[in-house]
Parts: sequence; C-alpha cells; structure tokens
Amino acid sequence: MTLPDLITRHQEAVEATLQATVEGRKDPLYRMMEYQMGWVDETGTSVTSSMLRAHPTLTLGVCEALGGSVESAMPAAVAVELLYQFACVHDDIQDGTPDHGPRPSVWWVWGPAQAINAGDALHVLARLSLFSMVNHGVSTEQVLAATKVMDAASLELFEGQHQDLQIQGQVAVSQSTYLEMAERRAGALMGCAAQLGALIAGADETVQEQCRQAGRKLGLAQHLQGDINELWNATPDDAPLTIVRKSLPIIYAIETAPVAVKREIGTLFMTRVMDPQDMPRLAELLGEAGARTHCIEAAESASAAYRASLESAGVPSASLDELAAFGAHLIQHGTTGA
Amino acid sequence: MTLPDLITRHQEAVEATLQATVEGRKDPLYRMMEYQMGWVDETGTSVTSSMLRAHPTLTLGVCEALGGSVESAMPAAVAVELLYQFACVHDDIQDGTPDHGPRPSVWWVWGPAQAINAGDALHVLARLSLFSMVNHGVSTEQVLAATKVMDAASLELFEGQHQDLQIQGQVAVSQSTYLEMAERRAGALMGCAAQLGALIAGADETVQEQCRQAGRKLGLAQHLQGDINELWNATPDDAPLTIVRKSLPIIYAIETAPVAVKREIGTLFMTRVMDPQDMPRLAELLGEAGARTHCIEAAESASAAYRASLESAGVPSASLDELAAFGAHLIQHGTTGA
Repeated sequence: MTLPDLITRHQEAVEATLQATVEGRKDPLYRMMEYQMGWVDETGTSVTSSMLRAHPTLTLGVCEALGGSVESAMPAAVAVELLYQFACVHDDIQDGTPDHGPRPSVWWVWGPAQAINAGDALHVLARLSLFSMVNHGVSTEQVLAATKVMDAASLELFEGQHQDLQIQGQVAVSQSTYLEMAERRAGALMGCAAQLGALIAGADETVQEQCRQAGRKLGLAQHLQGDINELWNATPDDAPLTIVRKSLPIIYAIETAPVAVKREIGTLFMTRVMDPQDMPRLAELLGEAGARTHCIEAAESASAAYRASLESAGVPSASLDELAAFGAHLIQHGTTGA
Repeated sequence: MTLPDLITRHQEAVEATLQATVEGRKDPLYRMMEYQMGWVDETGTSVTSSMLRAHPTLTLGVCEALGGSVESAMPAAVAVELLYQFACVHDDIQDGTPDHGPRPSVWWVWGPAQAINAGDALHVLARLSLFSMVNHGVSTEQVLAATKVMDAASLELFEGQHQDLQIQGQVAVSQSTYLEMAERRAGALMGCAAQLGALIAGADETVQEQCRQAGRKLGLAQHLQGDINELWNATPDDAPLTIVRKSLPIIYAIETAPVAVKREIGTLFMTRVMDPQDMPRLAELLGEAGARTHCIEAAESASAAYRASLESAGVPSASLDELAAFGAHLIQHGTTGA
C-alpha cells in the first residue's frame, strides 16, 4: 500500500518524539503504555511499530499548510496522539473489547484496574507534552490556549462516549442524535488535532474554528465508514460480529424501511448477541432498505465537508490536495495500521 | 464534633466554587459528578453535603500562611479537590469497592463504563479550574507552573496506585516498599495541594518543596491511621472486613514476629477472603507482635514531619498551630465526612 506523502514525510519524527516522551520513564506503569503505543509485545520485547498516527499527521499537515513550523507543532501533535491512545485504553475497558486492532487490549493483558491507571497516566503525558512547547518557541499564552483546546475536546469526547453508551441501551434512536454523537465521539480529537495545527501556525480564531470543523468531519467520515465496514466489509479473518452495535445503517433502516422489513431487522437485531449466521440476512435487509447507500453518501458528504472547511480556512491548493489524500487514506484504511 | 477553624473559615466558599464549576453543565455526564461530589442522590435529588474538602483547605491554609490571597488560590484549591474526586471514582472501580463512604460508588450505580467516563471528565474539569486562575490575577507563567505541579502529582499518584496493585498481589513486601508506595499514593495530591498554596503565595522553589513534603507526610499519616482503623477500630456498623489489604501492621509483623506467630498470621491472612470471625485473632496476633504500636509511631512521626516541614517553610506560628490542628483532625476523622 502506498502511503500519502503527508504521512511518510512526518512518520519518523513523530514516532521518535513519541518514544522520547514515554521511554525515558522507569516506573513499570510505562511498560503498559509502550505496549499500547505498539512498540513492545506483552513480554516487553520490541516489535516493529506500524501505527498510522493520524492525529499528529493532521496537526502537522494543517500547521505546515498555514505557514507554521513543524518543529513548534510537534509537541502538540504528539500530545493529541497520547490523548487518543488514552481514550483507546479506556474505551476498550468500557466496551469490554478483548482486542485492540490485531493485539489483545491493555486491560485484557494487565487487567482493568491497571489499564484504568495506564490510561490516566497517558492522559497526563499528553499534557506534559503540550507544555513542552514552551521549549520550542511557543509563547505561554499560546500554550495555555492550546491546553484549553485540548481540554474542551476531551470533555466533548467524554460527553460523546456517555451519549454512545446511552444510545446502545435505547430502543429508538434518531439519525440526528446518532450523527451528533458520532461527530462528538469520533470527531472531537480530530477537530482538536486540526485546530492545534492552526493555532500554532498563528491563525486567528475564525480559521482555527474552520480547521476544527474540518477535523470533526474527517472523524465523522471515518466513523461512518467504520459503520459500513462492520456490516458489509468484514473479512473472514475478522472476529465474528456477534454483538451488533447500533450504527447509522441500522438506525436509518429502522427509521425508513417498510414495516415488514423493520420487523425482521428488529427481530434479528434485538437479540443483541446475534448468531453470526444471521449477519448476511441483516446486511441484505439493510441493503434493500437503502441503508448502505445512505451511509456511504453520509460518509462522502462528511469527507467533502472536511475538504471544504480546510479550503475556507485558506489552505493553499497543493496542501489541500495533500490533506485530502491523507483524509481519503484514513477513511479507507482506519487508524490502527499503516 | 468541633471543626478546626481552618475548615470552617473556608468551607462555604470552597463548596460554592466547586458547585459553580460543575453545576452549569447540562450534559447528563455531569449528573454523575454531582453525585460523586455529594450534592445529589442517585435520583438527582439534592442532599446536604458534608464533605471535608481536605485538599482545598490545605491549599488555602498554606497560601494564607505564606501571605497569599485566598481569592487567587481558590481555583487551584478546587482543582485539587476535583482531581482527588476523579481519583476516587477510578479507585473504586479498580478496587471493586461497591461503596464510597456511606453511599454506593459511582460505578455501582451507573456501571464501570460510565464511571470511567465520569472520572476522566472530572480530571479535565480540574484542569479547567486551574486555568481559570488567569481571571484571578495569577500570571500565565504561574498558571503553567501550577499545571506542571498538578501533572507531576497525578503521575506520581498513578505510579503509586500501580505499585499498590502490585503489592497486593505479592507474597513478600518490605516495609520500605510499602511506605514508599503509601507516601506516593496517599501523599501525592496532598503534597500538590500544599505546594500550589505556596506557589500562588509567590514562594520560591525551596519553600514550595518544603510545603510539598509537608503535604506528603500528612497524606502518609492519614494512610497509616487508616491501616490502624481497618484492623483495630472498625465499628459494628462497618461492613465486615473480609478482604484483608496488605497494610503496614501486617507487613511489619510478617517481617519481625517470631516464626510461630508469623505462621499463624500467614495462615489467617493468606486466605485473602477472610472469615470475619478470624479478624479478632488476627488483630490480637498483630498487637502481640508490636505491629499496632509500630504503626501508631509511624503515623505520629509522619504527622510530626508535616508540622516540621511547614515550620521550615517559614509558616508563622499562629498559622502553624492552625494547620497542625487541621492535620490532626484529618488524621483522626478522615476525608469523607466533616
């Protein structure tokens, strides 16, 4: 797979800065973090990392595009990645998912108590990285502003997670509630990543907000593509999908399909822990109800909004193409592997 | 019970500032926080709060004692309380304790997934409170310095928790390892509370460090008193102590008692889930091994070190007496009720 230029250009520096942030620390607590970051296996043996680091790439890409320095933006870029990894560690516990990408989750290896701890500590490392910007020519005012941006995004992420947990337990959910949740949950940190890039490039608040909106839409597009993949693109290698999440295709079909189709979807879906053999029938029903097409259109529209917001922010066309290619790659391939 | 002056003087303002930080927020996520803060019950109905708010009291007390303004220190005082409550919410999940003080834990009421979330959000609110100091005449440099202090303390707390989880799973633990863990785990935030008070009063780094040490020793003294209470001062109202934590009296006795006594303690203790009827015999054996006396002396020595460190920091004698009375109250009565 050919990686977009934006990723290959920054990959090495991002990884080296991330490693410098975590690896100097001796307490055994940090070994769990190194595992989560993809640098070591359960036994502490080094492995080759192949993580995409989408958030840092977006921060650096936006900062460059608006004339800022990559060196100044690096601590913020790394901070968002650490924040993202913190959220992943806690997410896996919250959802009870034993795997994180191709490997067991931190809580599955070390237990939920230690995993809560490792996540909390990653959260703090994210902040410490942000503060180190004062050593890279960023003013204390900008550092404080960046911290506020990161905190607002974190709160929005937690609010989105709360909403998602509630949605999964509700019978009827509207599309607009789902899309609002998905944009908060999947877009908060992407919005933060893009906004920080603009902030460090010295952009004004309007441009910062446009970049934030761009990042949110990219996160939303990724989330919707994930909804599609879960139902239609699962490969035989994937774990059998037995607990079906409430996702946009399902919500759309329940909202719009004829009564008989709704009833059949409802019967299949309401068991929650589904027989994997019923999956093809569910996918077929949803497809007939136009839910797949609808979800693809929603993802494409979010992806177009990502590009449009960057354009309004004044990103020059060469950078715009590069950021768009990065976005398309991300939507297609996800964040866990490069 | 008569409360020390230091508590009564600040109680109302602390509580009002805490409420203003959390209560303006509409997302249902914040209802869990209001419950944790002691303002509402499970159904959202207001209840009378009687929390001691030890950390804010220490921050304000130290700041006043060193000539600083209570108004400037209030956001930091409140920030440490929010940080402490965040740690409590996650702690209860990690330890699997269904109760927090006299009420069910957040995770017991809302489930662990939402509780992880509520804790994470409290963590962010703590920071937002700290940043609001810029609106109270504190310079951005001081705010950044304060944030670093809080982050360092948080990391130390997580490292201490990690160590505690490891200790509980180990067979042999030395007293020095236990005391180091206890000072980190119970002292990190108290140290942070005291240091922030000094920082905002404009004290230099030496004085700040002395105050930090004072706070750590106060936290340690409280922890050791907790060890004693758990074994010897449990009232019939307390839940039966069935899972015995590895605490200083037990570690001391295993380290120093004659072989026959060690063996009996080991047999009683190693079951981990103890028959409550065996508790009096365990307490008796530990008492005979001098473990109670040893632990009382250790707590007293930590308490004396708290006062001595404040004295080295240049706290004038009237304030010193007040801070000492506050410390004694805290060690005796704990933090959950006033």
